[in-house]
Amino acid sequence: MSTTDGAQADPDEDVATLSPAAARARFAGGRATATSGWCQGYAQANVIALPRELAFDMMVFAQRNPKPCPVLEVIDAGQVRADPGGAVFSAPGSDIRTDLPRYRVYRRGTLAEEVDDARPVWREDLVTFVIGCSFTFEHPLLAAGIPLRHLDAGRNVPMYRTALRCRSAGRLAGPLVVSMRGIPADRVADAVRISSRYPAVHGAPVHVGDPAALGIESWDEPDYGDAPALQPGDVPVFWACGVTPQAMVLESCPEVAITHSPGHMLVTDARDADYLVP
Amino acid sequence: MSTTDGAQADPDEDVATLSPAAARARFAGGRATATSGWCQGYAQANVIALPRELAFDMMVFAQRNPKPCPVLEVIDAGQVRADPGGAVFSAPGSDIRTDLPRYRVYRRGTLAEEVDDARPVWREDLVTFVIGCSFTFEHPLLAAGIPLRHLDAGRNVPMYRTALRCRSAGRLAGPLVVSMRGIPADRVADAVRISSRYPAVHGAPVHVGDPAALGIESWDEPDYGDAPALQPGDVPVFWACGVTPQAMVLESCPEVAITHSPGHMLVTDARDADYLVP
Repeated sequence: MSTTDGAQADPDEDVATLSPAAARARFAGGRATATSGWCQGYAQANVIALPRELAFDMMVFAQRNPKPCPVLEVIDAGQVRADPGGAVFSAPGSDIRTDLPRYRVYRRGTLAEEVDDARPVWREDLVTFVIGCSFTFEHPLLAAGIPLRHLDAGRNVPMYRTALRCRSAGRLAGPLVVSMRGIPADRVADAVRISSRYPAVHGAPVHVGDPAALGIESWDEPDYGDAPALQPGDVPVFWACGVTPQAMVLESCPEVAITHSPGHMLVTDARDADYLVP
Repeated sequence: MSTTDGAQADPDEDVATLSPAAARARFAGGRATATSGWCQGYAQANVIALPRELAFDMMVFAQRNPKPCPVLEVIDAGQVRADPGGAVFSAPGSDIRTDLPRYRVYRRGTLAEEVDDARPVWREDLVTFVIGCSFTFEHPLLAAGIPLRHLDAGRNVPMYRTALRCRSAGRLAGPLVVSMRGIPADRVADAVRISSRYPAVHGAPVHVGDPAALGIESWDEPDYGDAPALQPGDVPVFWACGVTPQAMVLESCPEVAITHSPGHMLVTDARDADYLVP
């Protein structure tokens, strides 16, 4: 890989201040990295592409489960970027098949492979759903002085499959997946208040406190992401997670599904502030 | 019609305190009335049913135009009520074909008829979309002391087709329809602030001020609803309107579409407060 294709990381480059288009060009050029900290102020997003025959079911699944599956954009079958009216991802030259740093390919409910370029496995009938990500509300939590333990520890946020069921839609069903952040007891109310103002990116927590009440048994071994890093006095706070569609894929077994790899998100052209209510 | 089927209005009945299920039973029994003021505290909603072959396009149209088309619930083809997990409309005995006071039937983009009972015109392949209504944020506006001139005048809110285009989706396209409320200049900021906390029911206004900038020419003759009733010093404030799908139907000409009649809404089991953010 050469420097001209962007695959080689420049150690002096400040990825926090890159434009989303420049970041996507790096990833399209072969750079395969987690996107935490890239392009601050811009919304990152989960991605799942499914065959068109399941696209309506997916839209209804998302509508019935808006906390884990807030749809920010739909890219039509045969298209590789959002239509020009879309704030999320409509830049000329963008290509949803290459602009993520890493993809997962699921076949009939099994993780078949991870790839950096999804073009060889893409199909013309795939409809792509861009789904909100909690990175968007992590920035205002930090700005309010609320510590985020996984960032301090240099880890990915822990994510757990729960015993809670999503509402099903047609042929699609699965469990709710949550992300967990340990929040100091005297800041839990602030974390709830601030995240609730971002309903399009998972919004308020779904649960505060006892993980056993969610059916979480393997506390130290999350189903996705890294082990939790709580500090004394922290309360576990659980938010609905955009990995929920991947758990749905494991259970619903579509012929094919192509998603981002956890932590390797789509960097969109939308600003975090676009999703702030009121 | 007999009193036992609810068709005969009881002049002593206080419709504001009826349960949603009781109100829907009245409408199913033959009572054909506008629903403003019914079942206070419960969300009322727009309804549009389209053939399944257009259902995915409709979901994407709604996703691309969330301000006029916030989808609260989807009722699958062949079903007459929401599935049991739905907060909106899942009461046993409910039937979307009868529980609205009045329906409009569009055929190939033309308003063909208005009916009180949609069963004779229903089709098994119709998918029903329940869409948020600005009635939900009118209550907190009133509670904050903001006058609503159309209510004071005993009129329906005026609604206008604008020159603004919705983002299209597949075979569906059309103009943005807005509702207009005249707000005293010193309360416009409050009206914006309060309505913005209800993003699932149209949220913040799309435009404040000059109607000509929206391409509105026939100010005194709105396309839907009644003539405006502004007071001196009022500023016209425009919100995205749930009649937008009906304007889309006029332009996109599906084989059939069944909607509520403007002002004759679905009274849901969801509370206005369920849609309050944060």
